[in-house]
Amino acid sequence: MILRKRPSMLGLFFVLKGSVIQRIWMQVTAIFLIGIAVVWAHRNLDGVVPGLDPTPFSLIGVALSIFLSFRNGACYDRWWEARKLWGLMIQTARDIQRQSVVLEGTPERRQLLLSLVDFARRSGSQLRGKPEAKSADDALAEATRVLSKLETQGRLSHVQALVLHESLNRMNAALLGCERLANTPVPFAYTLLLHRTAYIYCTILPVGFVDTLGWVAPFVSALVAYAFFGLDALAEELEEPFSGQLNALPLSAYATTVEISMRRALGDTELPEPPKAVNFVLS
Amino acid sequence: MILRKRPSMLGLFFVLKGSVIQRIWMQVTAIFLIGIAVVWAHRNLDGVVPGLDPTPFSLIGVALSIFLSFRNGACYDRWWEARKLWGLMIQTARDIQRQSVVLEGTPERRQLLLSLVDFARRSGSQLRGKPEAKSADDALAEATRVLSKLETQGRLSHVQALVLHESLNRMNAALLGCERLANTPVPFAYTLLLHRTAYIYCTILPVGFVDTLGWVAPFVSALVAYAFFGLDALAEELEEPFSGQLNALPLSAYATTVEISMRRALGDTELPEPPKAVNFVLS
Amino acid sequence: MILRKRPSMLGLFFVLKGSVIQRIWMQVTAIFLIGIAVVWAHRNLDGVVPGLDPTPFSLIGVALSIFLSFRNGACYDRWWEARKLWGLMIQTARDIQRQSVVLEGTPERRQLLLSLVDFARRSGSQLRGKPEAKSADDALAEATRVLSKLETQGRLSHVQALVLHESLNRMNAALLGCERLANTPVPFAYTLLLHRTAYIYCTILPVGFVDTLGWVAPFVSALVAYAFFGLDALAEELEEPFSGQLNALPLSAYATTVEISMRRALGDTELPEPPKAVNFVLS
Amino acid sequence: MILRKRPSMLGLFFVLKGSVIQRIWMQVTAIFLIGIAVVWAHRNLDGVVPGLDPTPFSLIGVALSIFLSFRNGACYDRWWEARKLWGLMIQTARDIQRQSVVLEGTPERRQLLLSLVDFARRSGSQLRGKPEAKSADDALAEATRVLSKLETQGRLSHVQALVLHESLNRMNAALLGCERLANTPVPFAYTLLLHRTAYIYCTILPVGFVDTLGWVAPFVSALVAYAFFGLDALAEELEEPFSGQLNALPLSAYATTVEISMRRALGDTELPEPPKAVNFVLS
Amino acid sequence: MILRKRPSMLGLFFVLKGSVIQRIWMQVTAIFLIGIAVVWAHRNLDGVVPGLDPTPFSLIGVALSIFLSFRNGACYDRWWEARKLWGLMIQTARDIQRQSVVLEGTPERRQLLLSLVDFARRSGSQLRGKPEAKSADDALAEATRVLSKLETQGRLSHVQALVLHESLNRMNAALLGCERLANTPVPFAYTLLLHRTAYIYCTILPVGFVDTLGWVAPFVSALVAYAFFGLDALAEELEEPFSGQLNALPLSAYATTVEISMRRALGDTELPEPPKAVNFVLS
Repeated sequence: MILRKRPSMLGLFFVLKGSVIQRIWMQVTAIFLIGIAVVWAHRNLDGVVPGLDPTPFSLIGVALSIFLSFRNGACYDRWWEARKLWGLMIQTARDIQRQSVVLEGTPERRQLLLSLVDFARRSGSQLRGKPEAKSADDALAEATRVLSKLETQGRLSHVQALVLHESLNRMNAALLGCERLANTPVPFAYTLLLHRTAYIYCTILPVGFVDTLGWVAPFVSALVAYAFFGLDALAEELEEPFSGQLNALPLSAYATTVEISMRRALGDTELPEPPKAVNFVLS
Repeated sequence: MILRKRPSMLGLFFVLKGSVIQRIWMQVTAIFLIGIAVVWAHRNLDGVVPGLDPTPFSLIGVALSIFLSFRNGACYDRWWEARKLWGLMIQTARDIQRQSVVLEGTPERRQLLLSLVDFARRSGSQLRGKPEAKSADDALAEATRVLSKLETQGRLSHVQALVLHESLNRMNAALLGCERLANTPVPFAYTLLLHRTAYIYCTILPVGFVDTLGWVAPFVSALVAYAFFGLDALAEELEEPFSGQLNALPLSAYATTVEISMRRALGDTELPEPPKAVNFVLS
Repeated sequence: MILRKRPSMLGLFFVLKGSVIQRIWMQVTAIFLIGIAVVWAHRNLDGVVPGLDPTPFSLIGVALSIFLSFRNGACYDRWWEARKLWGLMIQTARDIQRQSVVLEGTPERRQLLLSLVDFARRSGSQLRGKPEAKSADDALAEATRVLSKLETQGRLSHVQALVLHESLNRMNAALLGCERLANTPVPFAYTLLLHRTAYIYCTILPVGFVDTLGWVAPFVSALVAYAFFGLDALAEELEEPFSGQLNALPLSAYATTVEISMRRALGDTELPEPPKAVNFVLS
Repeated sequence: MILRKRPSMLGLFFVLKGSVIQRIWMQVTAIFLIGIAVVWAHRNLDGVVPGLDPTPFSLIGVALSIFLSFRNGACYDRWWEARKLWGLMIQTARDIQRQSVVLEGTPERRQLLLSLVDFARRSGSQLRGKPEAKSADDALAEATRVLSKLETQGRLSHVQALVLHESLNRMNAALLGCERLANTPVPFAYTLLLHRTAYIYCTILPVGFVDTLGWVAPFVSALVAYAFFGLDALAEELEEPFSGQLNALPLSAYATTVEISMRRALGDTELPEPPKAVNFVLS
Repeated sequence: MILRKRPSMLGLFFVLKGSVIQRIWMQVTAIFLIGIAVVWAHRNLDGVVPGLDPTPFSLIGVALSIFLSFRNGACYDRWWEARKLWGLMIQTARDIQRQSVVLEGTPERRQLLLSLVDFARRSGSQLRGKPEAKSADDALAEATRVLSKLETQGRLSHVQALVLHESLNRMNAALLGCERLANTPVPFAYTLLLHRTAYIYCTILPVGFVDTLGWVAPFVSALVAYAFFGLDALAEELEEPFSGQLNALPLSAYATTVEISMRRALGDTELPEPPKAVNFVLS
């Protein structure tokens, strides 16, 4: 995740980090060059590039904006849902910490809270496609075993155990929700349809503008391409909130947050460093 | 569901699997041919095809995009709600597995968890319109019976039984939610209105563009038709998330996921294969 | 509710059932005739109908589409919320059936489940404005009485009674939610504003198109009118999901579903016919 | 709230009650007169009013529609949320009535249910800015006292008391939700920005249309002004759902509904009149 | 938060407080001056500024409106979610006050309720980036300790303690939800993409309008810039609902509301002043 103060008005135009321009500058440049070729051909080669009215191109552009905006909304919602699910995980870990305060000082509480730390870290690794030797599920099973033991021994009342088990269910729900997002992409046909239409459209755009805009056409076409390709690329990035790309969620940072919170509650003094953005990027 | 890595920039234009182009290429081609006929007639037959201003066509196109976008949003929401309901089913199955850990090793737990496997598989078959001999409801009734017996025998406390019964209620809620989606289509009149308007519009589009675009008109008309028919066809596919079409939900894979998870918890070693996409399609 | 397989491509254009065309054909025809009159006047009467640029008309048309789309979304959401509330009713009835399994075979269970059947049927009648002699509330009060008696007699534990009472609360919530929808229309001023603007707009549309489209103007105006009046009429129909109109919810069918489910659980063998669409309409 | 049957097609154009036309007719007329002045000046005074292309005006109009539509959606959502919160209040009152059935015939039940009647009536008065001598909070405190007394006396079990206390929490949540809506307007800067842009835009609109539309420009400008000012005024009205304006929520009617329902449950026979729309307005 | 009665029609144009005009007047003026320079150059310098058709500019403008509207919606949703979370905090504090009524008059109740006051005030300070010496978490831990002590001493039943602990969980959830909003900005790439496109677009807009609008172009360009820059600036302000800017949430006022409510319940008579808007601003 990119974390930076909003640069000054002018500074904004020179920010590269976090911008999609790094992913699409080749395509935008290509449209610009096609634009130059089209204007040159229109003016120098007779009849090769006709002079057209821009209205039909305007229609397609507006339609495309509407559809892109719909897909962007869907992808942003996925990203935000993922963020909320991790928020639920962090919050539930703290709930469990508070709910287990009756066990303060016992080794079982340490086991319980540290298994949550494992859970958070392993969840992050799994979602990023780099699973550890043991799974997040194993960590949850470990926590469940600790609770069951305590309940059987009568050190937790039925109500206390129930509340803690429900918190573990919420941890599980958060992870499964994230896995649902990770393995259910936005229907592939949307991506394909919009991507294709956007690329074909921008490629023929200079032809539509050459007659009315002349040498301004390449610039305007490139601006349109920047907006459309940029939104397309951004939607793609947000569609996969666990991908480790620049605008994806900082899962390692979240796991560290959980770890600090749990270890501090256990009275540990050697805590990990709080997560910090490196070069404006929090991972 | 289509699962594939995003192909390279150029590769994207040659992907057929998962594209709606397979369903609409005839219609798009028809618009293209109409376009050619219109241009020819406009140029060769006097007064048959008048030269028109494209602005009114632009207006209708934008209006249509807005309405199509609304319907697409509604259909996508249905698809995503269906996905969430199946997520709830998978998650609840795992909750029940954890909640029944006190019964570990008993034949009743095996009965309980296997009835969930039946439930998931039969739910999938029912939603796809191919019900098995016994219904998903029967599987749930079976699970309820097991729980009631255990409660009566005093092997489950009232609180434990309550929690498990509530989980079964959630399983039921997930299935009924899916059935609600399956038997309540988007109001038929929407489909009809948008479909008709889109087809009439694209058919007369070449007439609107012939004067200003000339021989480019068939191409532009075909591009508009591709976007509009494509979104219409895609919305139709997402409207029925259990249909078994390419972009529908992979219910068999979900049922297998539940089965693996339940059987592993029971200590079985001969587990079914994890679901894999065949030719990019997960079913 | 209209239930029918999507007709073939061509068939779609000849479907009348469920189409809004039946409600708006007079208005669309009127716009068409006005269009013809305008073109005739423009060509034959000097200076009566001026030749205008279509751009301003295009602007109003797009603005109108955006506003109509907003209202359509609001009405569709009402319709879908109503569907969900009935889904909640059906699901809760089944939950109660399962929660009362400890009472299997007792006359009290029969009383309880049959009062739910009454509740569903009377709710439907009330929402459609044709209340029966006894109200849905009375059915719920009956169910409450049965439960209280069983609890007092010690035949239901406190926890069991609590769970059942909460289910009755949910039944009540579903009905009150439906009543909220039924007696709170979308603010009347919206309907008025959009309806008036749409009708004035379509009436003057031929004047805007006559100069650039000529004899094509009546056809294009009629197409625009079809889309706008159609969406307006459809939104109106969905706004009242209990009205008994073609696209409204099939409340009788839902009540029958509840009845079949309850009676089967009671072991009855003479069950009502499962609801079926008659002439594509499920009511 | 305006409650009326949808008038006939023609009748719709003569409805004043509930229309925003009453609030904006002066502004719309002003735009119309400015339009006439502009056309006259354009034709008779040389060079004072230039002839302009309408395309840039079209662009601003569409942008404005999109932004107005966004604000309208936000205001409508506030109005609907307020409606839902009152729905929750009415429903919870009925839940409490059913949950307190074990107390039937006792004076405490009368106290409890009548305090809910006070709560609903006073909530309405407070939200409309005309608080009574005693606050809604006092009514809730009264109800809490009654419950605590009953619990201490052992006339309500812990579980029964818990359920009733939770219902009171919901009553409180509903009121606080309404207060949140009442004292958190849509950010003032939105109102300002959209209002200013809409008014400046409509004022200069005739200048943009004078050249292409001539004497039709004032009419078209007035139609645009009607739609834009109307939506602006309507959004403003819905933004404050408790204001007592025509399209606001009928809080008195809701309070009366609660009163009738509670008094009937207490066996009272002299019930207040059911709320009725007077001159199409329910308050 | 700006709190003021809507000024009169004309007054609206002279309101500065709360308007975004203060943040963007320099940029709007710059666009206006660029516009003047462009018109002058177009008329006096041969061939430096070409005369262009405004249609392509119209297309980009509409696309930009759609994307800005999407981002605005996302930012407004953040602001409203933050408001709801603070509403939850205020409501839960009142719930705890009512739930602890059995402890009336004890010093523990005073400790409990005052720790909620600390919690609210410190939460506000932390979210605004000015943390106090002790954290909001400490206040919650304090409350938890009080409850645990009371439970251990048998002065609260298990059920009563459970209910109060769950309320504390909700307080925690509200704070963590706010922190989630505070440290997860809208993806930076969106801000960058839309900001850049909007500024480039408005800068070249006068070139697009100079030929058709002449000396009116600077005014129209400035109006477009006002709307676009204004919405961009406003979205930025709402994106950070805890920033202390004019349109941000009045966290101090909310904390004071909690304090008054808690202290009054404790019987204190020296209450803080109810929060009031100073110069139309509530902070």
